[in-house]
Amino acid sequence: MKKPSVPQGMRDFSPAQMLKRQWLFDSIKKVFIKYGFLPLETPTMENLDSLTGKYGDEGDQLLFRVLNSGDFLKDVRQNPNEILDYKKITTKISKRGLRYDLTVPFARYVVQHQSEITFPFRRFQIQPVWRADRPQKGRYREFYQCDADVVGSDSLINEAELLQMADEVFEKLNLKVTIKLNSRKILQGLSEVVNFSEKMTDITVAIDKLDKIGWEGVSKELSERELSEDAISKIQKFVEFLTNKNASFNQEKLDYLKSFFSGNATGEAGIIELEQVQQFLQGIPFVNNLEIDPTLARGLGYYTGCIYEIKADEAEMGSIGGGGRYDDLTGIFGLKGYSGVGISFGIERIYDVLEELGLFPKEISESTKVIFLAFDESARIWSLPLVRRLRDRNIATEVYTENKNIKKQFDYANKRNIPFCVIVGDNEMKTGQLAVKNMIEGSQELMSIDELIEKFAI
Amino acid sequence: MKKPSVPQGMRDFSPAQMLKRQWLFDSIKKVFIKYGFLPLETPTMENLDSLTGKYGDEGDQLLFRVLNSGDFLKDVRQNPNEILDYKKITTKISKRGLRYDLTVPFARYVVQHQSEITFPFRRFQIQPVWRADRPQKGRYREFYQCDADVVGSDSLINEAELLQMADEVFEKLNLKVTIKLNSRKILQGLSEVVNFSEKMTDITVAIDKLDKIGWEGVSKELSERELSEDAISKIQKFVEFLTNKNASFNQEKLDYLKSFFSGNATGEAGIIELEQVQQFLQGIPFVNNLEIDPTLARGLGYYTGCIYEIKADEAEMGSIGGGGRYDDLTGIFGLKGYSGVGISFGIERIYDVLEELGLFPKEISESTKVIFLAFDESARIWSLPLVRRLRDRNIATEVYTENKNIKKQFDYANKRNIPFCVIVGDNEMKTGQLAVKNMIEGSQELMSIDELIEKFAI
Repeated sequence: MKKPSVPQGMRDFSPAQMLKRQWLFDSIKKVFIKYGFLPLETPTMENLDSLTGKYGDEGDQLLFRVLNSGDFLKDVRQNPNEILDYKKITTKISKRGLRYDLTVPFARYVVQHQSEITFPFRRFQIQPVWRADRPQKGRYREFYQCDADVVGSDSLINEAELLQMADEVFEKLNLKVTIKLNSRKILQGLSEVVNFSEKMTDITVAIDKLDKIGWEGVSKELSERELSEDAISKIQKFVEFLTNKNASFNQEKLDYLKSFFSGNATGEAGIIELEQVQQFLQGIPFVNNLEIDPTLARGLGYYTGCIYEIKADEAEMGSIGGGGRYDDLTGIFGLKGYSGVGISFGIERIYDVLEELGLFPKEISESTKVIFLAFDESARIWSLPLVRRLRDRNIATEVYTENKNIKKQFDYANKRNIPFCVIVGDNEMKTGQLAVKNMIEGSQELMSIDELIEKFAI
Repeated sequence: MKKPSVPQGMRDFSPAQMLKRQWLFDSIKKVFIKYGFLPLETPTMENLDSLTGKYGDEGDQLLFRVLNSGDFLKDVRQNPNEILDYKKITTKISKRGLRYDLTVPFARYVVQHQSEITFPFRRFQIQPVWRADRPQKGRYREFYQCDADVVGSDSLINEAELLQMADEVFEKLNLKVTIKLNSRKILQGLSEVVNFSEKMTDITVAIDKLDKIGWEGVSKELSERELSEDAISKIQKFVEFLTNKNASFNQEKLDYLKSFFSGNATGEAGIIELEQVQQFLQGIPFVNNLEIDPTLARGLGYYTGCIYEIKADEAEMGSIGGGGRYDDLTGIFGLKGYSGVGISFGIERIYDVLEELGLFPKEISESTKVIFLAFDESARIWSLPLVRRLRDRNIATEVYTENKNIKKQFDYANKRNIPFCVIVGDNEMKTGQLAVKNMIEGSQELMSIDELIEKFAI
């Protein structure tokens, strides 16, 4: 029989990985809850008409589609000449698809349940999504997303709170990061100031690559997009001042932006957004860097206001989080006028960074604290009520169940990272004094069951 | 635009539901961890050859199949005369399916990763599964399962521990249950004693319906299955004694079984299993009823040893949990000789029972403890660092972000079940004394921010 496997791009998460993942997810969840965000889950499958057209042509191709049940060909037989055209029959044999991200199902949920929801609605969602992408290192077909969003509030207090949440999350994870902040209105203003407002997307896309291809590359791309020499040179000055290491103080950048955008309403509106967020953060302690970066673009997304992005200071790994405001979150499902602002933590990448930097706390691999090892079956049976007494004090405890020699039993404890072994034999049963071995230090001491319980009770 | 919806049989879980579900799942998880079980997750999709043939013909039909990506018809075109036969092309256009239960993927995991696993391997798994069943009240196409299993140990200490876990779980949930225990060997022995050992399955299936159709129905079914008068009358005596309300003591039942099975090796082996489990539970406190029930059958499953089933004492809802031992868990994937024993909690049904009996703790709907309401924007901005100080002490806190009148702000707090409101206006900003309203009692008191923090700090 062939050894079984999982489909390409899919993963099992072993206990060792799961303990780390759960610690990571729970750490983030605790921050969400502290800030008043509520949990939500949407189903794995959505109707395909909720999904198609929401992620562009490429997204449509990457959707996993679920075959209709029963005779899925019954609507196909009517047009037998279409039958060999897979594009034409797809929608006839499949009416459901797997969740592709958390934002579209959230928007769908808000519209569907608008009458039951208390706005502003603060929700978080940590669920897997599926994309039929070509698998490669660090890219999977099933992966978790982790989003927190507020819908139904225009207040920039939300942006200020989301930035605090990001700071607190990475403080908890002990991972130093830099959070960059901008407004899409700054980029829109820039394209207006250089007289190419219709090319805002081209300018954004080019500047977005500054990190990767440098100014020379950006400049080349801008002239390919038919921007004038004059416009490009203005953009160059803008970019060079604002990415200058010496201009690292947010106030200096804001002052520059004010003079640059003087008279341009869009740019000025962007500056006010950044200033407001700063005002709402006054007196709030930050552990990580928070930098205004007027060249931050956040790809092609649907953002219309503030945007932010998080990078780890000590690892080579693009963005590990980010988000922003989109003025019309629920418009795709026909409900106008609901502004949304959110943050997304790239938990799969954060996991990789924590692993790379060795930042997962050692304790989380020790799920069981104490194991009882016995010299024979009667000692094992004698220990069962003691095991229970430890558990009753919330001490994660196991009993080794097999008739194996003590060395094999210690091997099990070692492989399972269990820090304390209690060894039970005739002598222990007679005296009630238990030999407790500390597996990390290699030391051993004798104690009564009551002392043992007091030692570990939580 | 049509109001969006979710596919038939699928559900959104609102924040109110999620808070309860998380509390339920976490309560069970804590017990699993205390008993040394480790978390595992397997992917949503499995290769269809891992799934088909594992759940019978009906199961195969209920599998959700995922359409292959790209030109899924490319292997179909070679046999154009098969093209309208949906049964023949299914395997050609779809090579992956959605997880149907947690046991088969677990067996697949154990076989695939056998060289990395430390046996005995104790794992728990809480994940959704999918079945293309006809949706009806209480039956969904996506629902969570919650399993804990031990693989690679023959020791009945495992059975004793799983029963303790069940008892502890329902103690935590404050739900009174009865746990019934039997061994499949008792049923096998019964069929041997009445000289119809080849009809063990028929006998099991009939007895399994005792609750629903009474002895008369069972007897009728047995004679339809061509059991002799004599055999049926022996089974009747067996069933009547053992379901007699007066024979409620486990010891009395064991004594009866001993005389009934005297000389039958299979039945005697079953009795030894039940006695051993009882021995391993000596000195262990049980909150719920644990009853030996030699008529317990647990459906058609693959069990070979001990079996158990849990029912709520005060709700009309079949089994809410159960499990047992299967001597050859991993044989379906070609790895022989690994015994498995497990328990499954029917968390969707348990949720419904807890809801019906009003047993979810009230506090879990109060995710946010304190909200700051402000008379104007300046008061709101003034309160932001105070909000942060509460959060820094782990108090889940919100600030109401909108410029609405105080009544509307209180409405929000009410609908969100937030128990305490802090009202901030000119006076509060001047004196530093904050008005704190208890929303449950309707009372209000003045206190400093330090007093406020001490009041709620966790």
